[in-house]
Amino acid sequence: MKIAIFGGTGDLGRGLAINFAAAGHEIVVGSRSQERADQAAATLAEALPSGTFTPLENVAAAEAGDLAVVSIPWEGIEGTIPPMAEALAGKVVISVVNALKFGKSGAIAEQGEALGAASCAHRIQDLAPEAKVVVAYNNLPAAGLQAQHHLDADVLVCGKSKEAREKVIELTSSSIPGTRALDAGPLANALILEGMTAIIINLNKRYGGEASLSISGLENAPARPA
Amino acid sequence: MKIAIFGGTGDLGRGLAINFAAAGHEIVVGSRSQERADQAAATLAEALPSGTFTPLENVAAAEAGDLAVVSIPWEGIEGTIPPMAEALAGKVVISVVNALKFGKSGAIAEQGEALGAASCAHRIQDLAPEAKVVVAYNNLPAAGLQAQHHLDADVLVCGKSKEAREKVIELTSSSIPGTRALDAGPLANALILEGMTAIIINLNKRYGGEASLSISGLENAPARPA
Repeated sequence: MKIAIFGGTGDLGRGLAINFAAAGHEIVVGSRSQERADQAAATLAEALPSGTFTPLENVAAAEAGDLAVVSIPWEGIEGTIPPMAEALAGKVVISVVNALKFGKSGAIAEQGEALGAASCAHRIQDLAPEAKVVVAYNNLPAAGLQAQHHLDADVLVCGKSKEAREKVIELTSSSIPGTRALDAGPLANALILEGMTAIIINLNKRYGGEASLSISGLENAPARPA
Repeated sequence: MKIAIFGGTGDLGRGLAINFAAAGHEIVVGSRSQERADQAAATLAEALPSGTFTPLENVAAAEAGDLAVVSIPWEGIEGTIPPMAEALAGKVVISVVNALKFGKSGAIAEQGEALGAASCAHRIQDLAPEAKVVVAYNNLPAAGLQAQHHLDADVLVCGKSKEAREKVIELTSSSIPGTRALDAGPLANALILEGMTAIIINLNKRYGGEASLSISGLENAPARPA
């Protein structure tokens, strides 16, 4: 599969790109300019010489990808998504975007008017109305992911389209070692998954290490890979 | 400790009352009328004959409790909290209230204008400004809790006051078998913990069983009891 990644230089985007490439997917690295895309692809190729990382300007990358991962800072949504909307139509678009602010008391998930939508994923869906937007991966431990560790984590997947959620679930379990993806239902709860990132950042700060989230007690869910 | 519980007949409130009483705390069962409080206390005493459950009308219960647990439906906040505000001043008030709606696609966490505040816990804090409001327990498996099972779950605790969070953390690990409570930071993220309940309901519906949430990878957090 060709996977377009926008924001592949951030910790999480980089980690996802490396894992997807290691699983044999071709990564299309999108950026605002060809030069930045070239740099991002070169950095990824250095981290995983066996991977295929093709640099393209955003719209061309969106056209090339069978599936897209949006991992840009949330302030970049308004500028980045509209030009790609047509190219993303009908495709699964995974948003790992979070809107967080940082105060004395810790990381805080933005909500309400500050967001301009019910969540970052909703805003992407508003701007690319024909895309099949899914939220996933926000809560994965980024350092462990970049190091291709066996993560022992669950990936909660929310999205409007059940078919799109299932595609992401399959991609996850076939690509990211030690993860189990679970269908967590409608996109309406996207803010909750995005906001868990703030909670996890605060736990990491309080207790050290890199937290990951898991769910137990589900009778008919697949087992997490040992 | 005397723990006042409001909404002790709901699944979660009932489960908390039973576990706190089993750990030796005296439970004050608050309700809108003495008669309803009597009924609720009798039902709890039937479930745990060794427990002490004292029925009182809401304001008297708030006065009697050293700490309070609010486990009422969110539609009841506006009517229930204001008369108790003075009695709750200075006390730790644990909100386990969630605002959920249920559609074809599953449970959805209310957010934004529908809530009238950033979260249910924020609304309680608005109406009882001198209380030390903490969010916790929303995501515990209620059936397992009522059955006093060893839960193997983490309790994430958010609140403005660090001292209040620590009090709830201590209460949890000394009272609820198989749980570990973690300091998850400021009250600002209360909606995220409340909304995780919608995600968990959707997982339960999709996969069967009763999900509970846990966190791994924290270096300096206490171990979850085996």
